[in-house]
Amino acid sequence: MGGDFGPSVVIPAALDAIAKYPDLALHLVGNQELIMLELRKRNANVGGALTIRHTTQTVEMDELPSQALRGKKDSSMRVAINLVKEGVVQACVSAGNTGALMATARYVLKTLPGIDRPAIVSTLPTMRGQIHMLDLGANVDTRAEHLVQFALMGSVLTEAVENKPSPTVGLLNIGEEEIKGNEQVKEAATLLADSNINYAGFVEGDDIYRGSVDVVVCDGFVGNVALKTSEGVAKMITHFMKEEFQRNLFSRFAAVVALPVLKAFRRRIDPRRYNGASFVGLQGIVIKSHGGADTLAFGNAIKEAMLEVEKAVPQRISTQLETLLQERRTG
Amino acid sequence: MGGDFGPSVVIPAALDAIAKYPDLALHLVGNQELIMLELRKRNANVGGALTIRHTTQTVEMDELPSQALRGKKDSSMRVAINLVKEGVVQACVSAGNTGALMATARYVLKTLPGIDRPAIVSTLPTMRGQIHMLDLGANVDTRAEHLVQFALMGSVLTEAVENKPSPTVGLLNIGEEEIKGNEQVKEAATLLADSNINYAGFVEGDDIYRGSVDVVVCDGFVGNVALKTSEGVAKMITHFMKEEFQRNLFSRFAAVVALPVLKAFRRRIDPRRYNGASFVGLQGIVIKSHGGADTLAFGNAIKEAMLEVEKAVPQRISTQLETLLQERRTG
Repeated sequence: MGGDFGPSVVIPAALDAIAKYPDLALHLVGNQELIMLELRKRNANVGGALTIRHTTQTVEMDELPSQALRGKKDSSMRVAINLVKEGVVQACVSAGNTGALMATARYVLKTLPGIDRPAIVSTLPTMRGQIHMLDLGANVDTRAEHLVQFALMGSVLTEAVENKPSPTVGLLNIGEEEIKGNEQVKEAATLLADSNINYAGFVEGDDIYRGSVDVVVCDGFVGNVALKTSEGVAKMITHFMKEEFQRNLFSRFAAVVALPVLKAFRRRIDPRRYNGASFVGLQGIVIKSHGGADTLAFGNAIKEAMLEVEKAVPQRISTQLETLLQERRTG
Repeated sequence: MGGDFGPSVVIPAALDAIAKYPDLALHLVGNQELIMLELRKRNANVGGALTIRHTTQTVEMDELPSQALRGKKDSSMRVAINLVKEGVVQACVSAGNTGALMATARYVLKTLPGIDRPAIVSTLPTMRGQIHMLDLGANVDTRAEHLVQFALMGSVLTEAVENKPSPTVGLLNIGEEEIKGNEQVKEAATLLADSNINYAGFVEGDDIYRGSVDVVVCDGFVGNVALKTSEGVAKMITHFMKEEFQRNLFSRFAAVVALPVLKAFRRRIDPRRYNGASFVGLQGIVIKSHGGADTLAFGNAIKEAMLEVEKAVPQRISTQLETLLQERRTG
């Protein structure tokens, strides 16, 4: 049970979730003593929908993935992913070290046949609703074929969890270069145009939040920079807004008057609503919660896991991939 | 005289600038008739600080750079850059097609000796002040050595125009991968650590707006995506804020009360303040104004040009580059 807050966030989120979803059963993987402490604080107990799996090791947030993989076989993330592999649980949700979680998931669960590399996908808010974007940091130096696989996985996920048939997929690119974009993007564009994916062409950075397409595909380096940059801009803007509303007596008064509006506004860009990134392309469902997630945010990550289980996302990806490869053979 | 608004923005910005800076002389390059029309509207005339250079061709905003370069030898951007080359003017400011402007500038002015590729650099607001970031889209598939050259150019520019000795330079990277980042970034990090540049290590997307360093260096693909994504986030946030303040009678009232605060806030994230990207690495000064810039924004691009002329930025880059190369030979 990792993340910045461990059981103190995960346990209340788990209790909220089982109260809300009567069919849900949760395995709480981590230090039994700490878990019990948090449960007792809330007058909750194990049994019924809750099972504890005691683990003795901890993967630090800055630990090297390879180190965690080799040396932390009794960490909560390793044991939780093992449970997915063994079919005891249908999904794993973790707020732990992203790199270690990905390395462990990949090692234990393996990628789906035909998928070379798993990717990290998340929903982002847009002016019109939301989009799915991938890869957000699992892969750098991606080849064109990988971008096509990301496109397929993003498309399947969006179709499944949003009930949106044949979602549009855009390839993240820039508009300044003579022959637009870098080599891998240009090649991927050709491959996507020839596929059964609903490819909508190139999109630029500002199209992400305009909601021009349903899925945005990019290399993990670019996606991670875009995501973190977005977080940075949003933080700076809210920081400036706070400063201005606290500047003097008048602005403080204005803040009080505008409070309900400001609250409604903040709800709309609340990153907690978008918490829960999926590791797609694996033979199993693994959801990464933000390390700094609170109870509400972690709850959303649990919800994402449930939705992907219900929609059997990995199986759908397999089936779609089969179709894509078959088309290539016959086409 | 390009951009979305042509002379209707450039002329008033030019008139404001010569009124403000008595030492400034401007050559207005474009269709004489249109320029005269705008001047007359404002009871202004040529002579003194204003000279008109009539041109007959126009580079369209979506025209291919190679096409513009071959076929548009009497376009305003080509003639303006020729004037820089001939030493008639000391800098060119254009709101035209970025790709065409860069291709023309590179062809006519050439890069500085030792610089392989020019880069696009701009200032961005941060929580603490502002940073310079490059490359914002001139180069994709950049090699490590190019990133080092960008670092040097960004460092020299920042030192010169902000009077900030030995500015800190960060290399844009991601934090998720086992051995952080992609190949070119890792190699560039080694080269930078060995250089006389004040290299501060890796930074991530959210560090840009935190103002953790003075200069952020990245490949043009990544930089362009980061920039456009930032614009997209800012637009979405202001869009949501507007929507919330217009939702009902109460929120409209709150908007009226909060108006001075909201105005002060908007001033702080006003992109017009940061208008005017420099093409660095050329034997001459070329400033790109945003295509959609208004008079105030275009005025800032003129100011940036003046500052770079005053500080002799290209010459400084040459000198610094000489030092860097000498160190490598002797070190």
